[in-house]
Amino acid sequence: ERAESLRREFAGSGTLVVNLISSPGSGKTTLLEATVRRLKHDLRCAVIEGDVATERDADRIRALGVAAHQILTGGACHLDARQVEIALAETRLLPADILFIENVGNLICPSTYDLGEDFKVAVLSTTEGDDKPFKYPAIFARAEVTVISKMDLLPHLPFDLDAVREQLSSLNPAGTIVEVAATTGEGMDAWCGLLTDRLAAKRER
Amino acid sequence: ERAESLRREFAGSGTLVVNLISSPGSGKTTLLEATVRRLKHDLRCAVIEGDVATERDADRIRALGVAAHQILTGGACHLDARQVEIALAETRLLPADILFIENVGNLICPSTYDLGEDFKVAVLSTTEGDDKPFKYPAIFARAEVTVISKMDLLPHLPFDLDAVREQLSSLNPAGTIVEVAATTGEGMDAWCGLLTDRLAAKRER
Repeated sequence: ERAESLRREFAGSGTLVVNLISSPGSGKTTLLEATVRRLKHDLRCAVIEGDVATERDADRIRALGVAAHQILTGGACHLDARQVEIALAETRLLPADILFIENVGNLICPSTYDLGEDFKVAVLSTTEGDDKPFKYPAIFARAEVTVISKMDLLPHLPFDLDAVREQLSSLNPAGTIVEVAATTGEGMDAWCGLLTDRLAAKRER
Repeated sequence: ERAESLRREFAGSGTLVVNLISSPGSGKTTLLEATVRRLKHDLRCAVIEGDVATERDADRIRALGVAAHQILTGGACHLDARQVEIALAETRLLPADILFIENVGNLICPSTYDLGEDFKVAVLSTTEGDDKPFKYPAIFARAEVTVISKMDLLPHLPFDLDAVREQLSSLNPAGTIVEVAATTGEGMDAWCGLLTDRLAAKRER
């Protein structure tokens, strides 16, 4: 019910909320850096970072002049709606047009927790191997969007992109796949376009 | 107490038991493939694979002629001692000289579960970024050995190896670091030497 209360609040303020979930080291924070760099001039962006330890990720976002709050979970392996509620009450992240919630690096536990988001985004890096969707089906079935990251490393890796696309479409036929390399900018237009389209669609409702 | 009972059993049989823990896609299975390929002619190797879904990892080990059993956890994010106990009772993995337990891909939850192992090994791939030990301190503090994997990709990555070494030695001053590229063989002599030394030490006790 906390998630539903957050969702009503975000509907009222017209804030698009994106819950990013992946393994540690798939490039979530690097993707967010590249994303807010592109969007921050036209949209009010805010970021909640979830980590077991260190303020490092929030510091990286703040360095770009974008509001960010770090939730430290201690040992816990995921964020929950109560933590998001408290973070929003205790900070000035809102009002915002887009709120990104970067979950704790974990491909399993965060997949069942509703944070009041509009949709979940699974981030899968090419370096993790092409067998991951079927090995971790829950998150790839639930995420409306899968971002395949680190596309620039593809020439150096044994990664079968078609096999990954097939696994994803089998687990989640209505899902959207976006392929990006945040460090080179590849695919960032498509990713940012998806976000602004979803924001516009939410506000039309 | 189940873990202690397993540990007594492994002490009696002189089986070295290694619990491998890492993010999804850090290369645990590829490391195990390269490891058993080198060790299987001189030692009886056996492998327990833990995954949320698919028999894929156990199939990869069996293809090398080495005994492997897949534990499927359903949704669960780690292995526990009871699952290992049941797997050993229901299979013919033992007797073995070295039993490798490849935990579910997760850098957080498996770190607090004792499976009766001699030691935990954390695997960190260079592609995951050089901030991971401090971001996931529990496992890197607890693992007696950290394997830094995918060393062959270092030229293509912004990965500060010295920074990682410093974080590891701060979290775990007595820990051992081994740097490998399982696909090229780099570091595999040191890693396999560590395993055979630990096995010999266990049997001298």
